[in-house]
Amino acid sequence: MTTEHPIFSPERPEDRRFMAAAIRYAMRNVGRTGTNPSVATLIVRDESDGRGPRIVGRGVTALGGRPHAEAGALAEAGELARGATAYVTLEPCAHHGRTPPCAEALVRAGIARVVSAAADPDPRVNGKGHGMLLAGGVSVTPQVMAGEAARTIEGYLTRHRLGRPGVTLKLALSRDGRIGVRGGGQVKITGPTSDAQTHLVRARHDAILVGAGTALEDDPRLDCRLPGLGDRSPARIVLDPHLRTSPEMTVARTARTVPTMIATYQSSDAGRRAALAVEGVSFVACVPDPETGRVALPELLEDLAATGITSIMVEGGATIAASFLDASLVDRLILAEGAIEIGEDGLKAPIDVDGARRRFDLLRQDVFGADRWFEFSCGDRL
Amino acid sequence: MTTEHPIFSPERPEDRRFMAAAIRYAMRNVGRTGTNPSVATLIVRDESDGRGPRIVGRGVTALGGRPHAEAGALAEAGELARGATAYVTLEPCAHHGRTPPCAEALVRAGIARVVSAAADPDPRVNGKGHGMLLAGGVSVTPQVMAGEAARTIEGYLTRHRLGRPGVTLKLALSRDGRIGVRGGGQVKITGPTSDAQTHLVRARHDAILVGAGTALEDDPRLDCRLPGLGDRSPARIVLDPHLRTSPEMTVARTARTVPTMIATYQSSDAGRRAALAVEGVSFVACVPDPETGRVALPELLEDLAATGITSIMVEGGATIAASFLDASLVDRLILAEGAIEIGEDGLKAPIDVDGARRRFDLLRQDVFGADRWFEFSCGDRL
Ligand SMILES: NC(=O)c1ccc[n+]([C@@H]2O[C@H](COP(=O)([O-])OP(=O)(O)OC[C@H]3O[C@@H](n4cnc5c(N)ncnc54)[C@H](OP(=O)(O)O)[C@@H]3O)[C@@H](O)[C@H]2O)c1
Ligand SMILES: NC(=O)c1ccc[n+]([C@@H]2O[C@H](COP(=O)([O-])OP(=O)(O)OC[C@H]3O[C@@H](n4cnc5c(N)ncnc54)[C@H](OP(=O)(O)O)[C@@H]3O)[C@@H](O)[C@H]2O)c1
Repeated sequence: MTTEHPIFSPERPEDRRFMAAAIRYAMRNVGRTGTNPSVATLIVRDESDGRGPRIVGRGVTALGGRPHAEAGALAEAGELARGATAYVTLEPCAHHGRTPPCAEALVRAGIARVVSAAADPDPRVNGKGHGMLLAGGVSVTPQVMAGEAARTIEGYLTRHRLGRPGVTLKLALSRDGRIGVRGGGQVKITGPTSDAQTHLVRARHDAILVGAGTALEDDPRLDCRLPGLGDRSPARIVLDPHLRTSPEMTVARTARTVPTMIATYQSSDAGRRAALAVEGVSFVACVPDPETGRVALPELLEDLAATGITSIMVEGGATIAASFLDASLVDRLILAEGAIEIGEDGLKAPIDVDGARRRFDLLRQDVFGADRWFEFSCGDRL
Repeated sequence: MTTEHPIFSPERPEDRRFMAAAIRYAMRNVGRTGTNPSVATLIVRDESDGRGPRIVGRGVTALGGRPHAEAGALAEAGELARGATAYVTLEPCAHHGRTPPCAEALVRAGIARVVSAAADPDPRVNGKGHGMLLAGGVSVTPQVMAGEAARTIEGYLTRHRLGRPGVTLKLALSRDGRIGVRGGGQVKITGPTSDAQTHLVRARHDAILVGAGTALEDDPRLDCRLPGLGDRSPARIVLDPHLRTSPEMTVARTARTVPTMIATYQSSDAGRRAALAVEGVSFVACVPDPETGRVALPELLEDLAATGITSIMVEGGATIAASFLDASLVDRLILAEGAIEIGEDGLKAPIDVDGARRRFDLLRQDVFGADRWFEFSCGDRL
């Protein structure tokens, strides 16, 4: 709709360069802005002194989600905002609470032109932010690198459009397509670079989810252990309908440090539930799918979205991964393929690199030491 | 809209009696069903044996929000559901996740007639639940005691309609309209019956909110101390933009037992924030209203709603109460007037019983020992 609006001004040569910088800047707070998306604003001036356009103000959504990016960038630019161009990775907000909407703040500050990337699915903003700018005499160039910017707010968009969090499924595969050995505990499949990369992906999600099988067999920590990013550990969710996990497992023992939730049936053992609650574990109710007898995942995701969770990283195991794939609830698939072979006894992955290539769009491919890293986009939601 | 639908069947004499029972039953889990509303279903049969209609199944939304009420009631009724009437306090859900929608479950069970009370503002349900029942050959009588039922799901409705939690402001007033003595700490204004009543109201909200002034002066516990309802303590929120409160205060020291959040500016003391975080306190970011310099309450409430909080009980003090009233953010006002007089030195309440009578609709008036208890509905939202 908005793209065909006759009043919008055309893209300029430098627009993609500055928007790319704004998108990189927005990445900084992804996973740390609560229910608000992580958005960045750059304010750029061209002094016509032959040195070309320069950044005079920058802002990113604050930790926790407020203030919004525009406020910080305008404060830094001060009087230099007058006549300047603002690059915003998401359409500026247009609704009045007690503070003025960002679109109005840009108008008031004398911004001459706004270049924006992603459209906001929130009905209180959608198109209205641009409308408010145009009404205020600001020229607007929308949809510059919209797809790239949308990727920084994937979860926010999915939550608004589908009423559930964005889901990334990540699996480590051996060269022969196995994810572990049944009863063999955690098997080291990938090297340190892939592992660091995994922790970085964790930090960008609101929650990590694993099945009861993985919790019981591997007793994983599921935190973010990158230097300097320790405080970025997302919440942990264990899908454990029959409450087979115990208060002794690591995620329960550390529930005071990193929030831990167990999704379980109402009928699950009350005594065990109480023992886990003492450790600081909280619970989310789930119901069985009458056909498969397994937890109904759409309902669970809907309830998690309603509590403000916009993105979930599913880290296995085999059964859980297969359930999410079968239900078409995976938006992004990450396969980290290590150099080892596990052999016939290994637990087969529900999907391998070739299968993923056939079903999904390859977004990115990397080599990390002896490992290969693949990121696929599943479905056409963005 | 739905009320004028020609296909709906008329109310019967017994309908209000059974719906009133269903509404009382729904009250049982209010404040304990997470982001799902607390709803009740009664299944009623008339065996034409002269003994009149009888309840053969009952269900209420489970703790945590799932399973929904209809599932429990149908399970209890079993084959007796065939040909029976179902009383539901909220229009049955109509959207497919992995489990069948409740409207479909009622059809499948052979329910002949559904009497429903409140309409569901969720766009995936609104009118569609009734439509699905009618399409399945079930006769539907909507809007029976809709106002009374809406009151059991006030927060849920407000969150959907206004994007913020429902707000109850509760103040204890002396006979001369004072709420305390500046610097005098917690003053006992009301008697034990009013206090028990206050704790009951707490249990029905998702969160209790107080200002920094009250946290500092009174060091309150803000939990639910009724026998048997100890596990119903809602989360606690302290509105403390400049982080004046300390890790020694009671709500911080007990944050491991009852979730405690502080709403504070991004600029507030990082060291103090870390010390509070160690106690288990979490934080929600807020921004100042440029006009008053106080925390912008609409934005704060919007962010709290996005994290799944549907109802908040504001328990003072004077400054906070005035701010919520000034911003028209109070849906329900409770004034508990004690027998004592505090005198000229006392802290004046921002509203007294006479003022409230003029501005708002009196819903309920009671005498609890020496105290008078008033509940007002503010605004025409329901
Ligand atoms: N390489 C990797 O990336 C990776 C990652 C994680 C784990 N692993 C390996 O995977 C193995 C564990 O896998 P697993 O298949 O045994 O267990 P899993 O997938 O972690 O957990 C399966 C359990 O989750 C519960 N569950 C709840 N809702 C479900 C749903 N909708 N669909 C499916 N399951 C649901 C079920 O518990 P109930 O039976 O009680 O209903 C089920 O048994 C371990 O060997 C581990 O080392 C590998
Ligand atoms: N009888 C009752 O029902 C009852 C209930 C509670 C308390 N009390 C009494 O009330 C007294 C405390 O009242 P109080 O007025 O001093 O303190 P208060 O209303 O509890 O807290 C006021 C503080 O809250 C902060 N605040 C944050 N956002 C605000 C906003 N939007 N509007 C207003 N304030 C905001 C401000 O902190 P900054 O100044 O740091 O910005 C402000 O100073 C005590 O004596 C207590 O005993 C009585």
